[in-house]
Amino acid sequence: MAELEPERIVRLESDAVVVLDQRRLPDEEVELRLSSSADVAEAIRTLAVRGAPAIGVAAAYGLVQAVRAGESLDTAYETLAASRPTAVNLVWALDRMRAEPTPDRALALHEEEVERCRTMSQHAVSLFPEGTSVLTHCNAGGLATGGYGTAVGAIRAAWEAGRVEHVWVDETRPLLQGARLTAWELEQLGIPHAVIADSAAPSLMAAGRVGLVVTGADRIAANGDTANKIGTYGLAVSAAHHDLPLVIVAPTSTVDPATATGAEIVVEERDGAELTSRFVAHNPAFDVTPAALIAAIVTERGVVRRPYDFGETA
Amino acid sequence: MAELEPERIVRLESDAVVVLDQRRLPDEEVELRLSSSADVAEAIRTLAVRGAPAIGVAAAYGLVQAVRAGESLDTAYETLAASRPTAVNLVWALDRMRAEPTPDRALALHEEEVERCRTMSQHAVSLFPEGTSVLTHCNAGGLATGGYGTAVGAIRAAWEAGRVEHVWVDETRPLLQGARLTAWELEQLGIPHAVIADSAAPSLMAAGRVGLVVTGADRIAANGDTANKIGTYGLAVSAAHHDLPLVIVAPTSTVDPATATGAEIVVEERDGAELTSRFVAHNPAFDVTPAALIAAIVTERGVVRRPYDFGETA
Repeated sequence: MAELEPERIVRLESDAVVVLDQRRLPDEEVELRLSSSADVAEAIRTLAVRGAPAIGVAAAYGLVQAVRAGESLDTAYETLAASRPTAVNLVWALDRMRAEPTPDRALALHEEEVERCRTMSQHAVSLFPEGTSVLTHCNAGGLATGGYGTAVGAIRAAWEAGRVEHVWVDETRPLLQGARLTAWELEQLGIPHAVIADSAAPSLMAAGRVGLVVTGADRIAANGDTANKIGTYGLAVSAAHHDLPLVIVAPTSTVDPATATGAEIVVEERDGAELTSRFVAHNPAFDVTPAALIAAIVTERGVVRRPYDFGETA
Repeated sequence: MAELEPERIVRLESDAVVVLDQRRLPDEEVELRLSSSADVAEAIRTLAVRGAPAIGVAAAYGLVQAVRAGESLDTAYETLAASRPTAVNLVWALDRMRAEPTPDRALALHEEEVERCRTMSQHAVSLFPEGTSVLTHCNAGGLATGGYGTAVGAIRAAWEAGRVEHVWVDETRPLLQGARLTAWELEQLGIPHAVIADSAAPSLMAAGRVGLVVTGADRIAANGDTANKIGTYGLAVSAAHHDLPLVIVAPTSTVDPATATGAEIVVEERDGAELTSRFVAHNPAFDVTPAALIAAIVTERGVVRRPYDFGETA
């Protein structure tokens, strides 16, 4: 069994936070050594580290490194917190570290993130039919979570349980997180896979070559409506048309009880230059999939189905 | 009203066939002067000229140019016919020209192609609701047909009739014919448009921002099942889910009466390197949309609906 250990993605060394530069994957595996809060913030801002949980872990290590290198706690906190203003996990992780910015505490936070992924992934295994071909979108893998992953974690756990035959990886335009990151992770893990154009998924479903669709989530409304990378909604519509289950794997921290339904979620519009430098472009970063099109949502607490009750959440 | 005249796409001059190099669009408008059958064949083979009708027109002009430059008719015919072995229009156009390879005859063939597009486009206008936002995929425009276009022709005719407000252009991975060619054509025509990731179309439909989906066709089975660029089927599923019409605009020459249903259509698998050079890829060139998901098919003879009767076809 090939491996992709959490320490390869982000770790604390005696004089630096070391991260795998996700911008260089899959062509090169380059590590960045970050020795100040400014270095870590820059790595987060430039997407060398991406994925909400991974950002939180990197920031936690960053706070430890900054303080032991002589930076003031408050300055380091502010520098790191400002690196991705919309990332909820970032501030949550920094707040947890502020009282006691020690290596042990940061390591514990990292281990907890990975353990949470392992737990939700094990919960998801029973949803994979035996010998299934599974389709996933974007990168909800170890790179995004600091280890193991959510949707990719579930695929990994189901593969280890002998239930997965093959993985279809949506390339995920415009930024190609599937073709660059998920395919790389599956390669590291030795799980058979093929990259497809996002638009090829429906015809694979029609041909009976997909048994399950599994993705992560950016945000889940109280009723189960789920915002995720642009394209997830189209997969949901097509999966429903072909009577295939769509399973969302995400931590309960993704559930926002203050958001009643997906209608309240504002979709971020990103720079059109990601799509084309020459023409006007419309480039929404994510879409919202109604709960009615989701077979199950799996968190670290277990498998939930409609009507959704996620229990006590943040 | 901006224009995109057929002569800009392909024309015969006194000593050469002149084509707009589609590989260089949209960044540069470069004309190629082709003075032998080998030159024309090379332009077709390397996709400087693409789209079945446009290839036929270029080959017809190429035969005229070759003969008047002193090449043997048979050799020129063979050279041109071998340039894209699967293009039915190519051999059809060459056969029509063989008995009398004159400029007038080639010009007439070109004019007929464009006139056929104009006719089917006019037939399609009534299918566009007033003030609609229309979504199209790939490039079924004047560049592909030697002038005016099929799906883009219909959009153009409906725009001139005041029925179109805005066009969503699927970028059309992996080769980006939408982002490169359709967006360029719409710019030339002065029709408002925005390029989107293919995966963004379903959420636009859900938001009520699409009124109609219109595409061309590579091949239409006798029952109306339609093979077209990969992604068309997903648009069809999503359009049906949102109660939106999908309209196919294509010449009757696209209808293959020998193919009873789409199940008999073999999908070409193209080089995975079009998608990713680093990982295994699955890269089907087109998909098949069942007739049940198509609102209407428009040919130069008019609008037909299920059960499809295209009349007498080749």
